[in-house]
Amino acid sequence: MNARDRLPDAAQLAWRAQRVRQATLAMLAGLSAEDCLLQSMPEASPVKWHVAHVTWFFETFVLEPREPGFRPYDASFRELFNSYYVGVGARHPRGQRGLLSRPPLERVLGYQETVLQRLLDWLERGAADPQALALIELGLQHEQQHQELIATDLKHHFWHNPALPAWRPAREGAREDPGALTFRRYPAELAQAGHDGEGFAFDNESPRHRVWLEAFELAQRPVVNAEYLAFVEDGGYERPELWLSDGWDACRREGWQAPLYWLRQDGGWHTYTCAGLRPLNGAEPVCHVSYYEAEAYARWAGARLPSELEWEHAARQAGGVQDGDFAESGHFHPRPLEPGHSAFFGSVWEWTQSAYLPYPGFAPAAGAVGEYNGKFMINQMVLRGGSCATPASHIRPSYRNFFWPAARWQFSGIRLAR
Amino acid sequence: MNARDRLPDAAQLAWRAQRVRQATLAMLAGLSAEDCLLQSMPEASPVKWHVAHVTWFFETFVLEPREPGFRPYDASFRELFNSYYVGVGARHPRGQRGLLSRPPLERVLGYQETVLQRLLDWLERGAADPQALALIELGLQHEQQHQELIATDLKHHFWHNPALPAWRPAREGAREDPGALTFRRYPAELAQAGHDGEGFAFDNESPRHRVWLEAFELAQRPVVNAEYLAFVEDGGYERPELWLSDGWDACRREGWQAPLYWLRQDGGWHTYTCAGLRPLNGAEPVCHVSYYEAEAYARWAGARLPSELEWEHAARQAGGVQDGDFAESGHFHPRPLEPGHSAFFGSVWEWTQSAYLPYPGFAPAAGAVGEYNGKFMINQMVLRGGSCATPASHIRPSYRNFFWPAARWQFSGIRLAR
Amino acid sequence: MNARDRLPDAAQLAWRAQRVRQATLAMLAGLSAEDCLLQSMPEASPVKWHVAHVTWFFETFVLEPREPGFRPYDASFRELFNSYYVGVGARHPRGQRGLLSRPPLERVLGYQETVLQRLLDWLERGAADPQALALIELGLQHEQQHQELIATDLKHHFWHNPALPAWRPAREGAREDPGALTFRRYPAELAQAGHDGEGFAFDNESPRHRVWLEAFELAQRPVVNAEYLAFVEDGGYERPELWLSDGWDACRREGWQAPLYWLRQDGGWHTYTCAGLRPLNGAEPVCHVSYYEAEAYARWAGARLPSELEWEHAARQAGGVQDGDFAESGHFHPRPLEPGHSAFFGSVWEWTQSAYLPYPGFAPAAGAVGEYNGKFMINQMVLRGGSCATPASHIRPSYRNFFWPAARWQFSGIRLAR
Amino acid sequence: MNARDRLPDAAQLAWRAQRVRQATLAMLAGLSAEDCLLQSMPEASPVKWHVAHVTWFFETFVLEPREPGFRPYDASFRELFNSYYVGVGARHPRGQRGLLSRPPLERVLGYQETVLQRLLDWLERGAADPQALALIELGLQHEQQHQELIATDLKHHFWHNPALPAWRPAREGAREDPGALTFRRYPAELAQAGHDGEGFAFDNESPRHRVWLEAFELAQRPVVNAEYLAFVEDGGYERPELWLSDGWDACRREGWQAPLYWLRQDGGWHTYTCAGLRPLNGAEPVCHVSYYEAEAYARWAGARLPSELEWEHAARQAGGVQDGDFAESGHFHPRPLEPGHSAFFGSVWEWTQSAYLPYPGFAPAAGAVGEYNGKFMINQMVLRGGSCATPASHIRPSYRNFFWPAARWQFSGIRLAR
Repeated sequence: MNARDRLPDAAQLAWRAQRVRQATLAMLAGLSAEDCLLQSMPEASPVKWHVAHVTWFFETFVLEPREPGFRPYDASFRELFNSYYVGVGARHPRGQRGLLSRPPLERVLGYQETVLQRLLDWLERGAADPQALALIELGLQHEQQHQELIATDLKHHFWHNPALPAWRPAREGAREDPGALTFRRYPAELAQAGHDGEGFAFDNESPRHRVWLEAFELAQRPVVNAEYLAFVEDGGYERPELWLSDGWDACRREGWQAPLYWLRQDGGWHTYTCAGLRPLNGAEPVCHVSYYEAEAYARWAGARLPSELEWEHAARQAGGVQDGDFAESGHFHPRPLEPGHSAFFGSVWEWTQSAYLPYPGFAPAAGAVGEYNGKFMINQMVLRGGSCATPASHIRPSYRNFFWPAARWQFSGIRLAR
Repeated sequence: MNARDRLPDAAQLAWRAQRVRQATLAMLAGLSAEDCLLQSMPEASPVKWHVAHVTWFFETFVLEPREPGFRPYDASFRELFNSYYVGVGARHPRGQRGLLSRPPLERVLGYQETVLQRLLDWLERGAADPQALALIELGLQHEQQHQELIATDLKHHFWHNPALPAWRPAREGAREDPGALTFRRYPAELAQAGHDGEGFAFDNESPRHRVWLEAFELAQRPVVNAEYLAFVEDGGYERPELWLSDGWDACRREGWQAPLYWLRQDGGWHTYTCAGLRPLNGAEPVCHVSYYEAEAYARWAGARLPSELEWEHAARQAGGVQDGDFAESGHFHPRPLEPGHSAFFGSVWEWTQSAYLPYPGFAPAAGAVGEYNGKFMINQMVLRGGSCATPASHIRPSYRNFFWPAARWQFSGIRLAR
Repeated sequence: MNARDRLPDAAQLAWRAQRVRQATLAMLAGLSAEDCLLQSMPEASPVKWHVAHVTWFFETFVLEPREPGFRPYDASFRELFNSYYVGVGARHPRGQRGLLSRPPLERVLGYQETVLQRLLDWLERGAADPQALALIELGLQHEQQHQELIATDLKHHFWHNPALPAWRPAREGAREDPGALTFRRYPAELAQAGHDGEGFAFDNESPRHRVWLEAFELAQRPVVNAEYLAFVEDGGYERPELWLSDGWDACRREGWQAPLYWLRQDGGWHTYTCAGLRPLNGAEPVCHVSYYEAEAYARWAGARLPSELEWEHAARQAGGVQDGDFAESGHFHPRPLEPGHSAFFGSVWEWTQSAYLPYPGFAPAAGAVGEYNGKFMINQMVLRGGSCATPASHIRPSYRNFFWPAARWQFSGIRLAR
Repeated sequence: MNARDRLPDAAQLAWRAQRVRQATLAMLAGLSAEDCLLQSMPEASPVKWHVAHVTWFFETFVLEPREPGFRPYDASFRELFNSYYVGVGARHPRGQRGLLSRPPLERVLGYQETVLQRLLDWLERGAADPQALALIELGLQHEQQHQELIATDLKHHFWHNPALPAWRPAREGAREDPGALTFRRYPAELAQAGHDGEGFAFDNESPRHRVWLEAFELAQRPVVNAEYLAFVEDGGYERPELWLSDGWDACRREGWQAPLYWLRQDGGWHTYTCAGLRPLNGAEPVCHVSYYEAEAYARWAGARLPSELEWEHAARQAGGVQDGDFAESGHFHPRPLEPGHSAFFGSVWEWTQSAYLPYPGFAPAAGAVGEYNGKFMINQMVLRGGSCATPASHIRPSYRNFFWPAARWQFSGIRLAR
């Protein structure tokens, strides 16, 4: 974490910790213990595991080194719910998280409740040093990240059930017309990039640094399904000349014909949403595309993807994040775009053509927490702006998300540049 | 099925169907819905799936073609719970059974109850023709087979939980000494083999036929852990000259050092049982060995494995199955052997050196039920005699079990011949 | 080996060793050093490697322990050209034989010439004991086996060259009509099986033993292409109910639509032969089918495959091997069948429904040579009778060839039983 | 290609084409046709294939659309020797290039000679338009790239021969001491990057553009073996905290313990060179390391890798490429570094921490040639400066080489930044 300027206040943190936990619990509404055990691929964890892991983070990094007379809730959890922190020790194999029927869901909920209570008690005793407060802040941000993963992972798990379960209320989706795609021009300049020091940010958003941007144009909204469908119908998935070489290999190997969760049925395209299978809505931002698809689409459209710093530069000028389409709605599906809605924030993550690499002068935090971001800076591409499954309080212009270019199970979409 | 001579009586079948279902339900004692969803490998299904599938068998093969105004309990179950019957239609992928959090366990239990009740009603109406009675008999035998698989599969699933859960009561295992291994000689003769027509048998046990047996000797009890441990300690897993070529490849590839479920810990060998981890008991029959290990052990011991018809010939002379160690005990673990106990039946399945192939004149049943056995007659080896997880009423001298030679998760052991 | 009764005479062996080497050299006619280096899959070795390996056998098992002052031709060859004898030491990885551009082909030919000369010198000195003579006999038989493999492996390598090279003269293939398929009946009896002690045989053909054969019928010729084509055209490769379960999996996984080397082109079926691509000749025995295809064909035809001892029993009564279609013709392709030609020997290997397992009382030879056959007795099916690539002097009624059931690159065909 | 400003002169091109071909032929000295067929992995092609492919480039892109009455040398070559140009049509599978014993090497050499002659004739006729001249220039640069690949691929092929063949003369390697590693500081500035328009450059080096560089320091020579050995001996390959997460996975999966071609033998480290196995020379630049190893080494050394534009910025100031260690020496192995030798050019390619991505405004050429570079702009990292196997006339400050981060078979080394 990097919140050096303004440290969070203990009381405020305590209040937020309870709010964040409420949001995590709200993710579980309507889910059974069986649902929470599903794991459809190594990269997508069970809901139960996510809940345990966000708790583990607080217990391991905050309580264990500080709580007087610390005793672990369950000594076996240290290994079971460690994700990838080699500095903490052994880790249960990622691909086998779905085999942990025990501890049962109930015990994991008790774990979360107990650790939160102990954290609050400890905070109340006023013993928290600045580093501890920063770690708690990091833990809350971490929990919010996992809230989004609960949505995307569960959607992937349920996709493997032929019944295509709906677990979220459907939205009355007016079939808006977002209007023609327009571009705005940004002149060349030596810009500032990275976190500016106000509020929390992850270490990978720092240091703030200068970057020379040549003049560019950026689309004023994401690509919508109707536009992407034209690419599909124009043979986009059959024309290797539109694709990166690795992208074409992935397309053939995986048999891609359309974005993930699109199904051709009864003569028309449908898409699986958290509210079940629905006819494709042309006005919604296209999502669940890989970087490869986004890049091929852009080439087909005579454009390109923006760099992450072009995106950041433009997004800072676009105004705040307040009008976005975020997790708080509880739908976990992007709304149709209305004319004039730029949707820089929320709605869908936007692939950039930037590889996920350290900023000049980047230094990870000391200790195991330093593994949070830095060690993943290879083979992944940056996405920006948050999605319909991101909590609104969790996003900002400098936020860097990252996935490998074939990943499709996130709410990932496309904004064109040129 | 092959029970042509004496057809089962409808009333007796109804009574047995209830008993068998009670036994299936008893398997679930102490298990949560989460436990019943686990799937640790494609070959080992979730408990919930087993329960649904045995019900599916009755619904699909008995009720659907006969019950007046038949309506499926749930139309989606036809595909979800079909194991491998291509004659019935599509099948949910075997490796994804663990992703079916829905239908929930409760609904599957309701499915079983409802289908059983409809079956009983239909039987009571007296409409059952001989073929239907034979199918119901087959369905009950089928359910008993799956009872054993519930035990072996669940043991495999739980093995992937670092807590090594115990879900069955421990047995007070007196540490018996089974005495030295002795062999009995059987002179050469033209013997009869296969099912003799009394009671139920699967189609693969027929037709009864003649076989010339050269003179042979057969061990009067299975190999026990203490004996197998001597093989391990003599470098059995490090000496390729003891192994079949494919066996040695499997041994290296899989990193075998001992039977499945053996763990070296605190300076001694332990074994994971359904009652948790326990110190290795030298007097228990060795189990969870592959054919490759059984065959290598036999070579090391200066002996060989028996052919399946040598085994059958000897077992018929050994008296009945009544003194065995079967599923009814509820332990699902072989008892230590007492001196003089031949254990032909129960305790552990015994690998034979016979490939699983059709008997001369074998003909599978017509229709989809004909897929029950015949289409698996390749790449597998025959095991005989039943195990500690086999219901006592389910085994007989002509019974042929079969697994591929690298399989280790069944209660499979060794009896030597020479 | 097992030629205990009549030991070969040294002078005769010397004469035969030269003849066999001539036959090996004749295999190389028209091949370049580049051709002799090809390796298209781990199971199919380069021609150069085969030549080196048959020489290695003589050097390692005959000369090394007996030749006074033995010095290896090249010390590195001991490991390079060891196939699978763990008793001899390390082995160059099988899948990397095609990476041995050095030693060059010329040096390998010199190796063969030198070792043969030393062997002849040593024989001339009259020092050969019975065991040595038996080993030389085994070595000659071994070399003949590899002559066949040179043909089948090279055909497989060339198949990967889009030019589909022809390296053997075409035969003027009169398009015979073999006539309708007829069956002969063999009554039940207690038969003798295995090698009868006259001449050479491998250890796996012994001991001679009794076997009870129930009455059976056997087709009086192999299945021909026209018959197999009817199976293809009847949807044989699309109907899972005709296949063993593992066979169907292989069929789907590998995308089989017809036997190996069949190509549909210009509206008709062609087949790749050692003389290049040719239109399919309906009168030729079908070959390059796997066990799975042979077994599915038999089911489709309302028949089955014979057991290996049924086959042996019938073949002994069919007269000698003299009228067959063997390697000596130099075509390496089965001739069209003429009416009345039983073709038990030569033409195509015939899959049997017998797993490759030890005969009762089987004992492999002591030492590394004992690895010749015994350690492969698992997961393979027996083929009988030799093929168009087998030397005529190499085959006999008791000869057991064996391959895993998915193998297709041998000249393997089908004879029906019922 | 991008040589728009100064077009090459036809006569000069003709002269260079002959020189470049001589250099290609010189690569084959001492190699047999068998050597030239080797293919040890899909990524490393046979020497024969390289020779055919560089000829194919001229035939397909220059002669075919321009030569009057063009007739292909061999129509089958169009597919056989197409590398990855989907715009040209089908391609022989990359992993099966080592199975093309035919056409034989001799015929491929005749192909090269004939096409070159036809190219020279056509040039002499004076018909070449600017685009054609640019394509020929591109073809020559392309051939030079493949000269380097012939060296690196053949080294990899030979590595799989236990004899570790030497095919290049050894260099009398004085064991220099390169002196301590020093860094030079470069102040922050808005720099120019990319090709400046003088002479040939690939399209991926354009357009020239501005980039803001923060102040940085760069090592004045590459890391040498003695320094890297300290990393190895300090447990560098056993400490996950030093590695990127994907790097650590690769390290474990591949069993890396040291750079490729290092062998521990007789108590000391050796390295396989094109002149055979030699004791490790501590003064030579370390090479055959992956990006993952380079990055881990840098972390261990308290430094980082430079970005590609930092490297380019510094290299432009370092003077020309004349003092480098290039392919012309014929050794294909980096010389020991002398004190003061910066070795920006030649010696070893230097991994940068920049992903291979398009420069702002990048546009690939139209048509199939446009596939040359652009479609590989994903999942690879940039290397700079050329190596001991790069022709001296082929390198320049703006040259961008690229490989995926696990690649080790190129002459790839490390220069530290901080």
